[in-house]
Amino acid sequence: MTAADAYSHLESRFRRIAVLEECATVLHWDAAVMMPASAAEPRGDQLAELRVVLHELLTDPALGELLSAAEEAPPEDPWAAANLREMRRDHLHAAAAPVDLVAAHSRACSACEARWRTAKGEDDFAAVRPHLEEVVRLSREIGAVKGEALGLDPYDALMDQYEPDARADDVVPVLEAYAAFLPDFLAAVLEKQGRAPAPAAPQGPFPADGQRALVRDLLARVGFPFERGRLDESAHPFSTGYPGDNRITIMVKEDDPSMAVMASLHECGHALYEAQLPSAWARQPVGRARGMAMHESQSLIVEMQACRSPEFIAWLAPRMSAALGPDPAFEPANLKRLYNQVTPSLIRVEADEVTYPAHVILRTRLERALMAGDLAVDDLPGAWRDELSALLGVRPDTDREGVLQDIHWFDGAFGYFPTYTLGAMTAAQLMAAAQEARPEIPARLAEGDFTPLLDWLAGAVHSQASRYPTQEVIRRATGRPLDPTAFQAHLKRRYLETE
Amino acid sequence: MTAADAYSHLESRFRRIAVLEECATVLHWDAAVMMPASAAEPRGDQLAELRVVLHELLTDPALGELLSAAEEAPPEDPWAAANLREMRRDHLHAAAAPVDLVAAHSRACSACEARWRTAKGEDDFAAVRPHLEEVVRLSREIGAVKGEALGLDPYDALMDQYEPDARADDVVPVLEAYAAFLPDFLAAVLEKQGRAPAPAAPQGPFPADGQRALVRDLLARVGFPFERGRLDESAHPFSTGYPGDNRITIMVKEDDPSMAVMASLHECGHALYEAQLPSAWARQPVGRARGMAMHESQSLIVEMQACRSPEFIAWLAPRMSAALGPDPAFEPANLKRLYNQVTPSLIRVEADEVTYPAHVILRTRLERALMAGDLAVDDLPGAWRDELSALLGVRPDTDREGVLQDIHWFDGAFGYFPTYTLGAMTAAQLMAAAQEARPEIPARLAEGDFTPLLDWLAGAVHSQASRYPTQEVIRRATGRPLDPTAFQAHLKRRYLETE
Repeated sequence: MTAADAYSHLESRFRRIAVLEECATVLHWDAAVMMPASAAEPRGDQLAELRVVLHELLTDPALGELLSAAEEAPPEDPWAAANLREMRRDHLHAAAAPVDLVAAHSRACSACEARWRTAKGEDDFAAVRPHLEEVVRLSREIGAVKGEALGLDPYDALMDQYEPDARADDVVPVLEAYAAFLPDFLAAVLEKQGRAPAPAAPQGPFPADGQRALVRDLLARVGFPFERGRLDESAHPFSTGYPGDNRITIMVKEDDPSMAVMASLHECGHALYEAQLPSAWARQPVGRARGMAMHESQSLIVEMQACRSPEFIAWLAPRMSAALGPDPAFEPANLKRLYNQVTPSLIRVEADEVTYPAHVILRTRLERALMAGDLAVDDLPGAWRDELSALLGVRPDTDREGVLQDIHWFDGAFGYFPTYTLGAMTAAQLMAAAQEARPEIPARLAEGDFTPLLDWLAGAVHSQASRYPTQEVIRRATGRPLDPTAFQAHLKRRYLETE
Repeated sequence: MTAADAYSHLESRFRRIAVLEECATVLHWDAAVMMPASAAEPRGDQLAELRVVLHELLTDPALGELLSAAEEAPPEDPWAAANLREMRRDHLHAAAAPVDLVAAHSRACSACEARWRTAKGEDDFAAVRPHLEEVVRLSREIGAVKGEALGLDPYDALMDQYEPDARADDVVPVLEAYAAFLPDFLAAVLEKQGRAPAPAAPQGPFPADGQRALVRDLLARVGFPFERGRLDESAHPFSTGYPGDNRITIMVKEDDPSMAVMASLHECGHALYEAQLPSAWARQPVGRARGMAMHESQSLIVEMQACRSPEFIAWLAPRMSAALGPDPAFEPANLKRLYNQVTPSLIRVEADEVTYPAHVILRTRLERALMAGDLAVDDLPGAWRDELSALLGVRPDTDREGVLQDIHWFDGAFGYFPTYTLGAMTAAQLMAAAQEARPEIPARLAEGDFTPLLDWLAGAVHSQASRYPTQEVIRRATGRPLDPTAFQAHLKRRYLETE
């Protein structure tokens, strides 16, 4: 078989894998949005069985042979060559862990996550501790075998699952530099903020239907493809889909429309990335979005960079009044302060963009120690309190507001948290480059027009899919690889230099 | 390997198959209820890929060897023995048709069904004719190879896919006996009906939310498991699900609440059958519902036998007034006439229970001729008009109201139509036996109480799953195999003897 034939067979096999992944996507969406709780167990079985089928397809020795044959003479077309590189990556990751270990890890995560849901409600870390210990043990094993296969440190092998090529040697200094930057900067922000009146909060209730209509209007303006997608509601907002079908969810709280408005814009950023991936490479590894950090950058460039900018908030404020009824909180000056309020707090998902990285730094420090065996699960709640207190000067009284707040570890996701802050930093750097290339962006946002920003993103990021490694995408888009000073410059401008 | 070991391996393999079938169920539901139209093509790919995986699992030669090994000494437990019988059945059907033929048929059906949707709207049979010819050609091939493998006539092999053990030698005489019974009976019904005033139709609009609330109340009363299921809306009402998750859909028309009310009760009958299958045999072939005729009998015993009975309608009438507002149509005497009105008409899905079998007889005659090669697709529209005219004295002016009205053939379902009327006849026979065993059923229906009827059905039908062949289920429940005179007796009682 020629290398070209082998590559062509690989495209067929990976297409099949992608199509079956899409089946899992639909089942996940349904589980979060539609499914009765009684079906949690059968749905778990369904997803696990699909995982087994996918694992078998990806680890088929014949696929490994095809890869070796194709690599003898890689395709000349640069997209096809990149596709072959991504195929090898997928195969390496899947084949690195024995199927029994993958299955044991998957079962432990399901059991742990289910126990976590009740333990969080009851603020009972001890109840979920043995489950988490098992998940940590199996995650360390996976890190070890994947690290062995990929020639990486175990934690790097875990991170590489979410953000290809991310390495602690690069990521940790970036995060720790922020930890060093934060204390003085935060003090300055709080000092400046304290000189203005505290922003008024909206006085609800704001009927859910009015919020939904407002969200639909805003999403249509940003460009959410309603004719090729859905907007629904779920306990946690998320974005998912496959070509031809982009779905996002929001949570509507009658007492506070900010949740629905800002979360929908955030998820819309994710959805637009997916919707604008190159259709010619759909269902091939190279056609996928480029890692979780880049994905988060696309949600944050829409939400944090564009929609919380003074220009857009000035446009948004009267529309909130019109849709939800007048409220002093919707006065432009107040809304700007409200949507850029900085408050050290206990809960990551409620954090502002200045303190959010501190929550990520805390988690990254602790999960690296867990994976290295330097921290016992038993000591986790106390370590959490101490770290948060040191980073932000606040200390949770309960584990519900501490170590139990996030699902990620209880669902086996170690190495994921850093992508949130890498995404925020990437978003700031991309926005600076976008505005340099298209100086009209702020003025157009002031008219509620996202076209120049999204055109630029489509060209620089969305249409690139996984053709290049993350750092190369950033370099091509901005002239240099990830440079955390762009994020600091953005924060200084928004929180210290803007009135 | 011992026979017992082989059987145990088979249970694992068939469990896996059932779980992946559940994935397809969720994808089908989503396609009908939630999915944007833009995703029709990728969803078709997703379902086709799942079909390929399932076909590979079912036709795996190792599975054939396990079956042979297990059959050397079948399990003593009668459920397990029946399970082995059903496993063999599934394997025979799957292995009979070569995978290329199955794939070609599946592709032809997808293309034909898509073309049919527009052709129906445009009343353009010629546009879909070449597609239907291809579907007929491939369906005949499937009938031939399955007939060969199963030792059956090709049409019987096709029917056997939907209703195990159904044979034209048994089914056709039953249907043709009804064709002989119908003319005089229909004349008598129409004559009697003509002596009373025509029933008043409800004068809408009836707001959709009021209809939805009424439907929810009715379904709760019949016993629909809302806590383990969903009620949604779709272009055509249907019922689907898997253990722990029963979903039905309705269509709400503001001008006529009958559609939502009666279709929901019909689908609820299907759902209760699924919900009360024995959990001990879930995800095994023997644990499934016993064929499409029995399934239809469960929807019709709820809708036609129970809910259109004079006793239940007397209970229902004031509740419709209360939920939807007073309307002369909701007067009990009028509602009884309205819900038992007999009108020879063009459209099967709108037909009353007296003329419905004529629509089925028409389709059975024509599809047998198509499968035998005695009728060309080109001659189908004319043959349709002539047959309907002979059976019911009405003649469609358009193909939209004729051969284009149903999706079934265009989606490759030949051998399915007879199950509708077999189901109606089974329902009548089961209801007679139920009332003999539980004489309080009519009086309880007059109180809106389905308990005795559903208790009896749970014992006689639902809990039996696929342990026995259909005719044996009917014999055990009613003392004799299917006897079409029970249906005729029911019709005479309801339409000639009831005031």
